[in-house]
Formats: sequence, structure tokens, C-alpha cells
Amino acid sequence: MFFVMTPSRRLLSLRRSLVHCRGVSVENTGRKAAVDRVLSAFRSICGEDGVSLGEAIREQHGKDESVHRCRPPDVVVFPHCVEEVSALAKICHDNNLPIIPFGTGTGLEGGVGAVKGGVCFSLRNMEQILDLHPEDFDVTVEPGVTRKALNSHLRDTGLWFPVDPGADASLCGMAATSASGTNAVRYGTMRENVMNLEVVLSDGTVIHTAGKGRRPRKTSAGYNLTNLFVGSEGTLGIITKTTLRLYGIPEAMVSAVCSFPSVQAAVDSTVQILQAGIPIARIEFLDDVMIDACNKFSSLSYPVAPTLFLEFHGSERSLEEQVTMAEEITQSNEGSDFQWARDTETRNRLWKARHDAWYAAQALRPGSKAYSTDVCVPLSRLPQIIVETKKDLLESRLTGPIAGHVGDGNFHCLMVVDPDDLDEQHRVHLFAERLARRALALDGTCTGEHGVGLGKRALLCEEVGPLAIQVMQGLKDSLDPKNLMNPGKILLNGGF
Amino acid sequence: MFFVMTPSRRLLSLRRSLVHCRGVSVENTGRKAAVDRVLSAFRSICGEDGVSLGEAIREQHGKDESVHRCRPPDVVVFPHCVEEVSALAKICHDNNLPIIPFGTGTGLEGGVGAVKGGVCFSLRNMEQILDLHPEDFDVTVEPGVTRKALNSHLRDTGLWFPVDPGADASLCGMAATSASGTNAVRYGTMRENVMNLEVVLSDGTVIHTAGKGRRPRKTSAGYNLTNLFVGSEGTLGIITKTTLRLYGIPEAMVSAVCSFPSVQAAVDSTVQILQAGIPIARIEFLDDVMIDACNKFSSLSYPVAPTLFLEFHGSERSLEEQVTMAEEITQSNEGSDFQWARDTETRNRLWKARHDAWYAAQALRPGSKAYSTDVCVPLSRLPQIIVETKKDLLESRLTGPIAGHVGDGNFHCLMVVDPDDLDEQHRVHLFAERLARRALALDGTCTGEHGVGLGKRALLCEEVGPLAIQVMQGLKDSLDPKNLMNPGKILLNGGF
Repeated sequence: MFFVMTPSRRLLSLRRSLVHCRGVSVENTGRKAAVDRVLSAFRSICGEDGVSLGEAIREQHGKDESVHRCRPPDVVVFPHCVEEVSALAKICHDNNLPIIPFGTGTGLEGGVGAVKGGVCFSLRNMEQILDLHPEDFDVTVEPGVTRKALNSHLRDTGLWFPVDPGADASLCGMAATSASGTNAVRYGTMRENVMNLEVVLSDGTVIHTAGKGRRPRKTSAGYNLTNLFVGSEGTLGIITKTTLRLYGIPEAMVSAVCSFPSVQAAVDSTVQILQAGIPIARIEFLDDVMIDACNKFSSLSYPVAPTLFLEFHGSERSLEEQVTMAEEITQSNEGSDFQWARDTETRNRLWKARHDAWYAAQALRPGSKAYSTDVCVPLSRLPQIIVETKKDLLESRLTGPIAGHVGDGNFHCLMVVDPDDLDEQHRVHLFAERLARRALALDGTCTGEHGVGLGKRALLCEEVGPLAIQVMQGLKDSLDPKNLMNPGKILLNGGF
Repeated sequence: MFFVMTPSRRLLSLRRSLVHCRGVSVENTGRKAAVDRVLSAFRSICGEDGVSLGEAIREQHGKDESVHRCRPPDVVVFPHCVEEVSALAKICHDNNLPIIPFGTGTGLEGGVGAVKGGVCFSLRNMEQILDLHPEDFDVTVEPGVTRKALNSHLRDTGLWFPVDPGADASLCGMAATSASGTNAVRYGTMRENVMNLEVVLSDGTVIHTAGKGRRPRKTSAGYNLTNLFVGSEGTLGIITKTTLRLYGIPEAMVSAVCSFPSVQAAVDSTVQILQAGIPIARIEFLDDVMIDACNKFSSLSYPVAPTLFLEFHGSERSLEEQVTMAEEITQSNEGSDFQWARDTETRNRLWKARHDAWYAAQALRPGSKAYSTDVCVPLSRLPQIIVETKKDLLESRLTGPIAGHVGDGNFHCLMVVDPDDLDEQHRVHLFAERLARRALALDGTCTGEHGVGLGKRALLCEEVGPLAIQVMQGLKDSLDPKNLMNPGKILLNGGF
């Protein structure tokens, strides 16, 4: 903590600030003036150091890990508790200032860009792990808590939180973008693992989507507000607490690598493994280009061919059976013998190589930037879309190794782009749109886990159709009638 | 099919009907007149036999399996396809007539009662199983398709749909009430297993919550409309198609029964089984009164003590290990030796006894009616709430054997009530409210799987708080501004 003013002192001065700022009406053009006007109120809430106008800080908060250009907010605030978030939101609401929540900035679709300026709520100072109930398999965390921090905190309880998008993202941010990753095939995505949320609405109202402090493992009580906010990308409210499902750490884990003569053979193996009811924990596909890049980047020597990385969780004995069954299936599809990673160190090296795919792709062309596409199709459509996509990459003269969570039908092309080559960037853009439309034509979605953000708003309209978009817009209008919550994301209306 | 007019002929005459009926504005008091006015349009859409004013038919559609009294609609319509549902809804909308969707009438919270009169949409004639994709583990069904019908259709595919609330309910109805049941501990509830919905809104608009025909296993594309409609109990729209996740039928299943010296010992065993990562498929608790009733009703001879019914799914070999581990755990908690049900017949008899608990409870007092409470609490709170509840039953002089999906913390008191004893009915009502509030006080919910319906609207307010209720009401207003969709359910506003 590097703030001098205590939360209680700050809250004491809140009422005066609210009175001072209430009802100031400004036009969009007067936004900067409005920001100037509310600064002292912000400071009385968050402390002097809790409000930043510095260019470096603003730029750092105007950008995630995507290729979308930096759109810095007018000011960044660093609240310490939900009461401060609520008080700040109320001032923004009264002054028509956009609100952009910010976790770790590890998003991949430009979700944090302040496309209409406004106030970035950086939530890194809210970093408490609250209400851990090991016997009930649940925990509540604030938005500054990352996935790795939680798992490190849980280490001695025999429990873990398995959803793993690769990045060490904020768990509330992961809820906001409906993140998932390599373990989803067994443990589900954030949609299945968030039990309750505390949310601050644009006018400062604080709600608990399943009721304050509630954590039943299932409920049929009223509309499912929890899953309305999961994946809403900050456009409906600011998530200030997330209650999560936890799982027992498996007695044993073992990983394996297997190469295939074709994409079809790898996908057929996946379908058959799932159909056999093998409770596979991860099943990741890497195409020949991707495995070649990983070999080079992580000093590995796997055959350059369509490849599956697999992981099994369970008891020692059940692993033996899972692995035998899975290997029989892969071999019947002309897969190679499994290459094993039984000990923790080898296993960690394997998955580090998989998670470093992003850097491995970039290393294919030094000085390049990476851009990850993200589509998801029904399993049976994977071979077709991957083959067509590889052809498209060749024809478009683009480098885009493919890695994917094949058990869910979700995959990424890690596009490696020369940041100075505008023509190439344009070709990547057109390629990514073709890829998304190819997924749509095969009953899939334009985003399996990265979200819509800025880049996929038009594709979302194509995906769900204008009538469902109208329904979504109606929900947005109902919850955020002034369109202040992260405006310009998900829905085209109110964009930049 | 017993309708003479073909769907295509009916649709040809639609435009005239719509023109004829559009814009007729009536006060609530003029509802019956409005019904008279729209009948010919209804008939031109559904055929002569597709519109019923008969008292028996209306009464049959005004009631589910709960104790809520029959509230018959003014008229029942039997559409054959989504176009007919849409056309009928549009007429209702233009004439301010309430719309109540009806599946199999197996609900337990009075969800189908026409508390403001209006038009019941009985969806039994829409009974197609569409788009079965075995290799993608998904299928789409119309609202007339029940759980058992689907599983019987799937038999030769090696797949099944495991969500099992006991009743042979309509799958779209199960989506509408967010049903679950005995298998949820392993396979999740409807929330986790519905991939897409076709929904007709109150004005006749047809939307697909995840886009038409889409069925990726995961998506981050826009607001999660699917899970907004799952559990909305017909108050936001009429579900006319549901796309469901399917699972491979396990190679083997085995069931077991185990008695315990205390509720605490049974619950401790459950927590430890889950914590050990044993992928238990069902783990059902029956208290001493319930097992006694089941013994008598189903000619069984289990010890009259707190009891777990367990079921394991997997390969032969993995079952062996699961069972050994589970038995070690139960024995360490002073559980009895497992009584086995290894062959299909014995297993079916066991689960039939569990599913017949409702009738077993009723048989405790011939001539009585059963009423099922439905609360859900975190696992660790189960012993406390069950012990307190049994004490309350005694003190209130009520019979209410307890059965529950203990792996989810969800349990029911099957209240056995003399329908002529008004005093007893009043005591049951007060008891059920105390039970729900006890669950709320223990971080739980007033309904784990039956929904809010008519009876739990005030409890829902207590559970989520007035601000979350405001948000829910805002969503309802956005989707159904005239409050025509199943009015008076879930939310108190617009009640009867």
C-alpha cells in the first residue's frame, strides 16, 4: 500500500465530494473540463496517489496485449475497496464520464481502450483473498487477485482453481471476459466456475448477482445475473468480487505428446477420447508450423507434424487406465507412441513450451508483433477449418502457426506481423475476418474465449443476428442507460 | 398429429389474421372479449383442433405438480412450429393477452398458473429431435421432446443426456426452469448443458440466443443470452428449441447404498469423496424417515438411518478404484459396508426407489398430498440445516422426509399434507418459509432447482436484495415491456 489516506478517512469525506460534484452536466466536448472538475473529489476518495494523470500511467492503462492501438483514458484511479469504486462511479455517472475497468491488461481484443476517453478504474489495489471455504470448495477474491496468486495461496489446502488462460490474469478480469484456456475441456470456463459476483453499476449501485455472501453450488433463484455479467467485458458494470468454485488437486498428473500424419487424425483421436468418457484434463493441438516454432524456441525436438499435447488428472491407478485407453485411440489413428512427461519438472517444461507458443511464434520473425485470432467450431468441423485456414495463410503470404484447445473446438492462429508493414497488417485483418466467417459458416463462433472487445463487434452481429443484438442492446440500455460503462465495446452502438 | 390444416396452409392465412387482429387495444377487464376476438385468428394459425376453450383442457393446463391451486388460462393453443408460436405471440402482444408456455406440467412451483388469465401455449405438438451431431456431442430438440424420449432416441449412438430431475419433463421446460436432479454433481445442471436456445419474445420476434444453428462448445461472443433465458421460467420468452450437450454413455455403472450413524457422518463422507476427486455420478442423501418410507413403499430393507445412495460411472477398472476409495472414506466415517447394485436390474430398482420417494412419502399418510421444499446450501452447512430442520418438523407436528442431492448441498423435505386440514397446510407454509430463511442464513438459496414460480417471489427478494431485484425487473421490462410473458412469476411486480 502506498496510499497515505486511510479508507475510513477517505470515506468520511465522501459525502462532501458527492454533493460538490452531483449533477454537473457536460457535453462530450466538455469531457476534459469535467475531468478537471472531479479530480479533487476523486482524490478525496482514493487519496492523492490514487489518482493519476501522468501520461505513462494513462498509456499503460489504454492498451492490452492485442494489436489495437493505445487509447489512453483521461485519468486513472486506483480504488482500494468497493465503497470507493461505488463513490467514484457515482461521480462519473453524474458527470457523464466513461468508466473503464482495468485488471491486469492481459486481454486480447482491445477491451481496455478508452475509445471515448473517461476514467480508467485500475483495480490492482483490491487484492484480498476473502472467505476461503475449503470444505465447500469456494473462495471469494477481489479484482487485484490473479490466478497464480490464488493458486499459490491455496497450495496448502489441497485445492486449486484450474481455469488457465495462459496469462497470469486477474480472476475478476477473467470473469469479465469469460476466459477459459487449456483446462476448460475438463473443468469448464469461467461461465461454469463463477458462483457469485459483486458488481458496481454505472451509477454506483452495488449488487451481488446471487445475493450477498451466497455460495450454493447451484441455484434456480431468479434470472441468472451472474452469467449475464460473466463475459460482459466491463460494459455492464465493474466486477469488484468474484466467488469461484475450487477443485481438489488431483493425486497425480501426467502429460504426453503425440504426433499425427494429419489434422484429421489428431481431431478424430480427440473426438474418440471424449466419446470414450476419458476425463482428459487438457488436449491441445499444435500444427506443424507451431510445433516447429516451439521446438526452436523451447529447445525441444518433437516431430514437425500435427501434434497433440495431452494431460491426465486423477489417481495413480486411474491415470494408468486413462493413458492406456487414450494411447490405444491415438495409435488406431496412426498417432506416434506417446512421449511422456511424468515428473513435475518435465511436465512443467512441456506446458511452459505450450504457453510460450505466443513468444515462439514471434521468434519466427524477430522484431515482429503477434496477434492471436480466436475461433471455435463444433469438433467435427475442425479438420475442414484448419485445412482451409492453412491454405488461406499460404495464399495470403502470412505466418500464423495454429494452437488450440481442440477438446472444445477452439483454436488460435498466432499471426506474426511486421509492425512496419501496413500491407501485411491489412492482409492479416482480411485473413482474420475470413477465418471468423469460416467459423460462422461451420456453426461456430467468432470468439471462443478472447471476447468481442473492439475488433469483433461487426462479426458478433453476423453471428447472432440483428434481433439478438437488439436484445443485447436492450439489456445494455437497461443496466447502463447513459452508455458510460466501457463504451464502444461488444456492441457497435455508441462506438468510437 | 390430429390437426387437419397443414402448417403451410395455416401460414398462408397468417397475414390476413395478423392484419385483422393488429392494434386491438383492450383493458384488463376486457380480456375475455379480447380472447373472443382473436379466436378465429388463432384457429387460422393452429387449425380448428389447435385451439381449445374446453374447461377440462384449460384446467389441465392451469396447474403443475405443486400445491398451488389451478389457475386455468382463458384458452389453450397447440402450435406446431416456431412460425405458429411467433404468429400467435404477435396477436397476444397486439391484444395485451398474457402468454404462458406449457411443456409437460411437471413443474413444482406453480409456474404454469395463468394468474392473469390469457393464452396457454401448449408445446406438445412440437416434438421433433433435430440436428443430432453424435461426433460433436450435441442435439437440438423442440419443446415437446422429453428427457426420456431423447435418451431413447439416442440409445444406438452411444450418447445420452444425463440431466435427470426425476420427472419425464420436456427438455425445453427443463431449460426454462433451470432443472437439474440426481446427476448434477457430475454432469452439471441445465445451465451448464444448454448451448443455444431459439426463443420467441412476447411480440413474436424470434431470436437464437447464440445465433441460429450455432453450437460451439464454448463462446465469448457477446452477452450470455442463453443463460439469461435458462431459468427465466417463461417470463422472458417462449423457448421453442434447445441445443444440448451430450455425453458418452459410460462403459459401466455401479450403485451402492451406505448407512451412517449421523447426518454429519454422511455429509463428511460426501465432502471427502468430492475432495478426493472421485468423479461420483450421483450421491443422494435420505434421512431416516425417508429411507423408512422407501423401505415400506418399494419393499426394501435398508437400515433406518441417515443413508447415501451412490452411483459411479466409468470403465470397469476405474469403477473398481472409485468404489474402493469411496468405501474407505465412508468407513472412516463409520458408514456401513456398501450394499451393491451392480447389475442393471438391481440398479434400476434402487434408483426407482429413490425417484419414487415422492410417492413413498405420500404413502406414509394415505389420502395426503405431497409438497416438496427445495433449498440449497454450501456443503458444510448441510448437517446444521438438516438437524435444525428435523427438529422444526417435530415441533411443528409435520411429516417431511428428507431427500437430497447432497453433492450439491441441495435437499428437499417431501411434506405430506392432509388436503382437508387447513391448519396443517398453514403450518407447512410457515415451516417452508422458515426452512428457506434458514438456508438464506447459511449462505444458501431458497431454491436449488425448482425455481421461484409463484411461491418464492418474496423469498427471492430476501435472497438477492432489492437492488438485484431492480436489475432483474429492468431486464424483464426490456424484454417484455407489456409484462405479458407468464406474468406474476419470479418477480412480485405485476403479480396476481
